[in-house]
Order: sequence, then C-alpha cells, then structure tokens
Amino acid sequence: MPEKMGQKPETDVLSGRNAVSEALKSGRVIDHIEVARGERTGSIVALVAKAKERGIPVKEVDSRKLDFLAGKNHQGIAAVAACKAFSSLADVFALAAERGEPPFLVVCDELEDPHNLGAVIRTAECAGAHGVIIPKRHSAGLTSAVYKASAGAVEYMPVVRVTNIADTVNELKEKNVWVFGLDMDGQSWDKTDLSGAVALVIGSEGHGISRLVRERCDGIVSLPMVGHVNSLNASVAGGILMYEVLRRRQNGT
Amino acid sequence: MPEKMGQKPETDVLSGRNAVSEALKSGRVIDHIEVARGERTGSIVALVAKAKERGIPVKEVDSRKLDFLAGKNHQGIAAVAACKAFSSLADVFALAAERGEPPFLVVCDELEDPHNLGAVIRTAECAGAHGVIIPKRHSAGLTSAVYKASAGAVEYMPVVRVTNIADTVNELKEKNVWVFGLDMDGQSWDKTDLSGAVALVIGSEGHGISRLVRERCDGIVSLPMVGHVNSLNASVAGGILMYEVLRRRQNGT
Repeated sequence: MPEKMGQKPETDVLSGRNAVSEALKSGRVIDHIEVARGERTGSIVALVAKAKERGIPVKEVDSRKLDFLAGKNHQGIAAVAACKAFSSLADVFALAAERGEPPFLVVCDELEDPHNLGAVIRTAECAGAHGVIIPKRHSAGLTSAVYKASAGAVEYMPVVRVTNIADTVNELKEKNVWVFGLDMDGQSWDKTDLSGAVALVIGSEGHGISRLVRERCDGIVSLPMVGHVNSLNASVAGGILMYEVLRRRQNGT
Repeated sequence: MPEKMGQKPETDVLSGRNAVSEALKSGRVIDHIEVARGERTGSIVALVAKAKERGIPVKEVDSRKLDFLAGKNHQGIAAVAACKAFSSLADVFALAAERGEPPFLVVCDELEDPHNLGAVIRTAECAGAHGVIIPKRHSAGLTSAVYKASAGAVEYMPVVRVTNIADTVNELKEKNVWVFGLDMDGQSWDKTDLSGAVALVIGSEGHGISRLVRERCDGIVSLPMVGHVNSLNASVAGGILMYEVLRRRQNGT
C-alpha cells in the first residue's frame, strides 16, 4: 500500500535556478517563490523580476527553511507550484497528430532513481518525443528531484502513469507503434529499423527490463559494449537511442 | 586554496554492490571489506566469497558505521581500497597504440557533479575510449561517489589530471588528435567527421565549455534540440557523441 494513501498532495516544491526558471517560462501555476536571505544575486535577481512581472509573490526566507522545504541543493531559490497533472495515452497520440509526426514514446520500466527519470524526461523533450510512460509502482514519481534533474522538461513533456507496463506495451502495439526494449543480447542499434511510430522501453538500473515486458516487445535493441563494464547508465543508454530515433526522423531514413 | 592541502589521502572507500564487485574483479589493491551486520544476503554472499578467495579480510560492522564511512547508499557493503592512481597522457596514447586504434579521448571541462563525471567515465569505458582527462581544479575528484556512479569503470579507464584544459587541447592537437567541443551553435553531430584520432570536450552543467577551450577546439559539434529545453545532461550529451565515435569506428566510416 502506498505510504501516503488518502493524502492528496496539491502543491509541489521546485528548487534550483534552472527548475524555477523553466517553471516561470512555461506558464505553470505558481503559488509563490521563496528566496534565501542574502541570495538576491546573479540569476536570482532576474528570476525574482520575472516572478514579479507575472504577479507571483516572492518571500524572503532563512536558507535553513529552504533546506527543509527543498533539500540542500536549492541554490537559494524554490517555487511552490501546483502539482503537474499526468496525461493520458490519448493526449500523447493527439500531440503526435497535432505535430504531424509518427508517435514517439519513451517507456520507463521501473526507473526508481529520480536523477535518471529526470534525465530521461529531459532527453525525451529535447529529442522530440511526444510522451513518457511510467508505472504507478516501483518508479520515482514526479517529485521535485525529478523536476530538477529534468531541467524543467517535466513542464513540457506529457507524462502518463499506468498500472501495468506490460499491458501498455500491448496497447501500443495495437495502435501500430513498434515497441523496442533497450537491453542486452538484442540486435545492434544501428541495424534496427527505428523509423515510423516507435516506443523505446528503458529498464531499471539494477535489473534491466522485466521479463514479461521484454517478451512483449517487438524487438530488443542493444548498444555495443567494448570495455569491461557491461552496462550504461539508464539515462545515457536511453539518450543514445532517443537521438538515434531523432536522427532518422530528421534524415528521413 | 584546497581545504585539505597537505593531507594526502591514501585510501578510498568504495561503496555499493556494483562498485565493490568491479573493484574485486579488476584486481585493485583492497585493504579490507566491510559488510553491515545482518546483510549477508543475495549478492553480498557472493562478494564476500570472492573477497575471501583473494585473501581480503572481511569485517562485519554496524550499518551506522558504514553510513559514516561511505554515506547512506552503501547497500550494506564497502571496500577500503588503495587510491586509484592517475595516468599520464603518455599512458593513454600507449594504450591506444597497444590496441592498434587511433586515440579516442574524452575531456571533461569542469564537470563538478560526481554523478555526471562517473557516468561519463562509465560511458567512455563502454564506448572504447582510451582515457578521460579532468582538470585539477573545479572538477569532481575520483571520489567514492564518482566510483559508484561509474559502476566501477574508474578501475579500467585511465584518468589523467591536468593543470590547464586549454593547454591540454593544444597538446592534443600537436599530437594530431582532432579536438571537438560539444556545445551549442556548432556543426551538426551527424555531419561531422569524427573518424581517426579524436578527443571530445564535454563542458560543465551550468556553463558549458569555457571560452578559451572552445576557441582552441578544431570544431564545435551540436546535438539538435527540438523541444523547449535547450540542453541535455552533460553525461547524456557526452554519451550520444561517444557512441557516434564508436559507431563510425565499428563501421569504418
């Protein structure tokens, strides 16, 4: 059972200069900004000005209050914002249609590390994906740490939360999306046809893709490992594959 | 001035199952292993057996002692090892010659985040680079956090520490290595000739590549950014480029 069942968080704390800057740019509903006393220097001055322009209250607080609210790496600033709403799979397909592109999805199979999940969402946004899918259980949620690691990309990237990733893989296949798992012992990345509607499944740091999900994928894609260490960081491996999809979309191959 | 000037650390604490496993495999000089009481389960049993096989003492300690020694994420095990020695540029060129490959280097220009530096070293090792260059100042050192984020790749990858990255870029160019900086407003990654002896310069999270280093590079390579967020995580961007180098080496293009 989730620890916080019944408790519905309605605000989210975004900390760090990049994250606050992206939240301000994206037009997200921000309740107020907190700035550590004595930290109105450099880029914080510009952020405070932007917040005031948008009519968002700015409070000056003790930096220890920020430590408590946002953890140690707040860089002197945090935004208290309305929670980011999850999207539906239909939203993702609608976005692809609106852009006139074949759907491009990234499926995170139990990515528990918030830095990795954030980096995946950031890369997906930069590479032009239309949505990121995460499971309800055994995954980092859209916490402040994920937001920060995503450099604010969470604001722009539709994130869909599903009960069962294996069922979602089937649903994607029914919608004519080719689903490729990124794992060991698959076909070479640069010999795989990644054109058209495509979903990339990225597994967890420790265990890779779960067995059932792997079985349901249309294909398994592997990156060459020519050294002694036999795996890459999940967000790095995912990034290499996402940019391979983008390359082919841009080159029409 | 560095805080710990005059203090010469001679041992290093490697924590986490992956890091300890890689340290045992690599034949690194390990003083002893510490295991949290009650944690001799799963993969730790195998690690303890391997340590005993190599005649390395295993101590059982309170998990709070491990927290203190290695930080919170030790997963029940840590190795106290001799410090990893830095390599020289000559070592890196010798390794390339030994493998009969054109030199492939990765230069980290002030990567201060240990997770990013660790992930870069890990990817460099997987992609077949011969060495990673870091500056003496404004860079994460080869700490336990870097070791862990590298999944032990630090054991295998020669790391060179230099006083001045800009001077090193000149030195590399004199040795007929093409030096490419990864930054904005450069030529497209898939239109750039990355064959032959090559060094990739990866900039810091916040500021990218420093001006002087950028000016000295033979070329600047950029990745397309098709979304709203205009930069990738440094280790993800570096990974995409490193695998582009590997792809061309494997395909002979």
